Amino acid sequence: MRTTEVSTEQLQADLARLRESYRQYKDMGLNLNISRGLPCSEQLDLNAEMFHVLDENNYTAEDGTDCRNYGVMYGLPECIRLFSQLLDIPEEHIILGGESSLNFMYDQILRIYTFGTLGEKPWGQQAQEQKLKWLCPVPGYDCHFNLTEALGFEMINIPLLETGPDMDLIERLVSEDPTIKGIWCVPQYSNPTGVVYSDETVERLAKLKTAANDFRIVWDNAYAVHHLYRKRVVKDILKAASAYGLEDRILYFFSTAKITFPGSGVCLMASGGKTIAETRQQLKLQIFSHDKLNQLRHVKYLKTPERIHEHMEKIAQILRPRFDLVDRLLTENRLYEDLYTWYKPDGGYFITADSYAGCAAEILARVEAAGVKVATAASTFPYHRDPQDTNIRLAPTYPPMEELETAIRLFCICANLVGIEKVLKEREN
Amino acid sequence: MRTTEVSTEQLQADLARLRESYRQYKDMGLNLNISRGLPCSEQLDLNAEMFHVLDENNYTAEDGTDCRNYGVMYGLPECIRLFSQLLDIPEEHIILGGESSLNFMYDQILRIYTFGTLGEKPWGQQAQEQKLKWLCPVPGYDCHFNLTEALGFEMINIPLLETGPDMDLIERLVSEDPTIKGIWCVPQYSNPTGVVYSDETVERLAKLKTAANDFRIVWDNAYAVHHLYRKRVVKDILKAASAYGLEDRILYFFSTAKITFPGSGVCLMASGGKTIAETRQQLKLQIFSHDKLNQLRHVKYLKTPERIHEHMEKIAQILRPRFDLVDRLLTENRLYEDLYTWYKPDGGYFITADSYAGCAAEILARVEAAGVKVATAASTFPYHRDPQDTNIRLAPTYPPMEELETAIRLFCICANLVGIEKVLKEREN
Repeated sequence: MRTTEVSTEQLQADLARLRESYRQYKDMGLNLNISRGLPCSEQLDLNAEMFHVLDENNYTAEDGTDCRNYGVMYGLPECIRLFSQLLDIPEEHIILGGESSLNFMYDQILRIYTFGTLGEKPWGQQAQEQKLKWLCPVPGYDCHFNLTEALGFEMINIPLLETGPDMDLIERLVSEDPTIKGIWCVPQYSNPTGVVYSDETVERLAKLKTAANDFRIVWDNAYAVHHLYRKRVVKDILKAASAYGLEDRILYFFSTAKITFPGSGVCLMASGGKTIAETRQQLKLQIFSHDKLNQLRHVKYLKTPERIHEHMEKIAQILRPRFDLVDRLLTENRLYEDLYTWYKPDGGYFITADSYAGCAAEILARVEAAGVKVATAASTFPYHRDPQDTNIRLAPTYPPMEELETAIRLFCICANLVGIEKVLKEREN
Repeated sequence: MRTTEVSTEQLQADLARLRESYRQYKDMGLNLNISRGLPCSEQLDLNAEMFHVLDENNYTAEDGTDCRNYGVMYGLPECIRLFSQLLDIPEEHIILGGESSLNFMYDQILRIYTFGTLGEKPWGQQAQEQKLKWLCPVPGYDCHFNLTEALGFEMINIPLLETGPDMDLIERLVSEDPTIKGIWCVPQYSNPTGVVYSDETVERLAKLKTAANDFRIVWDNAYAVHHLYRKRVVKDILKAASAYGLEDRILYFFSTAKITFPGSGVCLMASGGKTIAETRQQLKLQIFSHDKLNQLRHVKYLKTPERIHEHMEKIAQILRPRFDLVDRLLTENRLYEDLYTWYKPDGGYFITADSYAGCAAEILARVEAAGVKVATAASTFPYHRDPQDTNIRLAPTYPPMEELETAIRLFCICANLVGIEKVLKEREN
C-alpha cells in the first residue's frame, strides 16, 4: 500500500506511534556507527595464516629474487600472474601498486594531470585554458568524487540505471565536448547501489566516440570477486575496448583490500600497452618497488584463483546473514511502499536505500540524534548535493549483528516517520 | 707523487703495465654489478625476527585499534612516537607514509605542484607563466634530480663543499629570484659524497631569506642513524627554522629502508604545523591509511631508539670492513695522487671518487667493457651532465667482499690507465 491510498487521520495515527518508538530508541542512549564499509573481525580472522607464510627461510620469489631487498619495480611476476589468471587480463597489461587502489587511482590521475598522457597536453595545463569536466554516475563513491572535485573538474551527474550509467546521455555529452576528460565507474556491484553494468553498457563504453583524445574510463573493479548471491561478472571492458583499438582509454583498478587486510593489501592497474609502458616510465620517478614482501605474502597465502574464490565464499557466508537481515528489516518495517525503496545486491559491500523525496538528510539527522551514525547525507553525490535528497548508503558488513539490527530498526522508524511528516505537510499545502 | 713530477717515458711504462693488467681482467670474463646502494643479505638477515612479531593474536595497536582493518590515516601513534624519540621531532609534526620516502617526496612535491601550498599558487600554474628553478647540490642523488627534471624545473648546480652546499651562492640566488622554488638536501652522510652539513650551513639554510614564499627545503635525512665510524649527527633544521618561524619551509623525510627491509619499510615526513595540517587534508584524497600492520611490525621489532642504535651498530660491523677495503684498495693502487681522489665518509652508503678531469665516463666505460658495472657516468649530476667529468659513486654495501675487491681493483687500474692516457695526450698538445 502507498501513502496515497490512506487517510490523513491514519497517517497521523502512524506518526504518533512512530514518534513514541523513536522516543524509546532515543532513551536507550545508543552510540553506534555503522556508516563505513569495513570488513568485520570474523572476516579478517579468516586470514590468520597470512601471518605465517613468510619467515626467515621464505622470502624468495620464484625467480630467486630476495624480496627483502630493493627491486622489481612493477610487481612480482608470480603475483601479477595470480591476478592475471583471476581477472583474465594478460600479465603484460598489469602493474602492481601498493596497499591502496585509491592511491593508485589518485596517482594515475595526477600523472595525467601533471605530465599528460600519450602525447596529449597535461590536464593541469588544459585547465588553465578552460574548465575541464568529469562524468559521475550517481549515486556513486565519495572518494572518487572528492578527487575530481579537488582537481577542479566540473562534475556532471549521470543517472545510474539498473543496467549501469545512462549511456544515451554519456554518448551525447562526450561526442560533442572535448573538455570532458573521464568517467568514474564501479561496474560490478557498484558502490553504493550494487548494480552490475550490462553487457550492452560495457560494449557502448568500450567503443565510445569522444571529442577528447585523452578521455579516460576509470574502471574501479573493487568487487570483482565479491559475490554474495547470484554470481554476476561484468563483461571484460579491456577486451571489448581492444576490439576498437581503445584499450588505452581504460584505467582498470583492483585490490585485495576486502579479500585480505584493508590497508595492507595489494592493488593493481591494468590498461592498454601504451599506457602501461608510459606508466612504467613515470613510476621510476617515485618508487624502486612497492612492498614485495607483501606481494609474496599474498601469493603464498592466496595461491590460486580457485583458492581466492573459495575464500570469497567463506566471506560471503559471513556477510549473507547481514545482508539478509537488512533486507528483512527493511521489508518488515516499511509502513507504505512509497516511503522508501532499496536494492538488495548480488555482491559487493553495500545496500542502497532511497527515501521519500526530500527526506534523506532529515532521516539521517534523526537517526544520528538518537546516537546512531548510519551514513553521511548526500555523500554518494558530487559536491555532497543529492538533487532529490533521497539516497542513503547502508553498510552492513562491519557491526555485530545485534548492533546492525538496532541501527536498521531505528533507521526504518525514522524513514517512515520523516516520510509521513513530509506527506502530511504536502497535503496541508 | 703527482704525474707532473714524472717523465713521459715513466708514464708510458706505467701505461703499458696497466694495459697488461687490464687485459688480464678482461680475459677473466667477469660479470659483476656493484653499482647500486643495496644492503647485503647479511644485513637483511639481522631482521629475521621481523617475520615473527605479528601473528593472529598480535595485530592490535596500543589503543586497541585492529591494525588488520582500515583507518588511522596518518600513522600509528606508537610508531610516530618511536620515530619522534629517535629523531627528536615532536609527534604532532610527523606524518607516516608508506614503504618509500622517495614516494612520499614525489607525492609532496606533486601536491604543491598541483594544489599549491599555504595559499600560494600551484607550481604547475606558475610554470605556465615562467620557468621555475630548483637548486641541486652536486654531486647528489639521481632520483632527486630525475623528479625535478620531469617536472620541468631548471636545475641549478650548487657545489657541495665539505661543510655542505655553497651557502654564499645559495643566499645570493634565492634572495633575488622568486622562480627558485626549492633545494634538495641529503644533509647527513650525503648521497654520494658522505659529507655532513656543518652547523653553520644548517643555520643559514634555516633562516634563508628567499624571494619566493613557497621556497621549500627538501631535507632527505635518509642516513640519520647510519653511522659507520665517528658519529656525526647533523644539526636539527626543524628546530633551527622554528626560531625564525620558517619551519613550514622544511620538508623533512626519513625512512627505515636501510634499517629493516628496503621496499618494505616505513617512512615519514615532518614539517611545520601548517604544512602538516595541509598535508593531512590532502592525504584524504588518496588513502585511508598506509600499511598499519607494517607500522606495528616495525614498532614491535625495533621497540626503542636505543634498540635501533644497537641494530645500526650491528649493520655498521658488517659494512665497515667493506668501506675499509675500498679505502685501502684506492690507497694502495693509486699510482699518482692527481689521478684520483676520494672521500671516506663517517656513515651512509657510498664512497665518492673523483677522477682526473675529463676521465670519469671513459673510466666507467672501460670498467664495464671488462664486465663490471661500477656506476652510471654522470648520474650524480642533474641532466646526467658532470661538467668536469670526474665524479664516480662507489657502492660497497651489497656485493660479496671478493667481488667488491675484484671490482675496485679493476676500477683502480682503469682510473690510473685512463688518467695517464689523458695526461700523455695533454703533454702531446
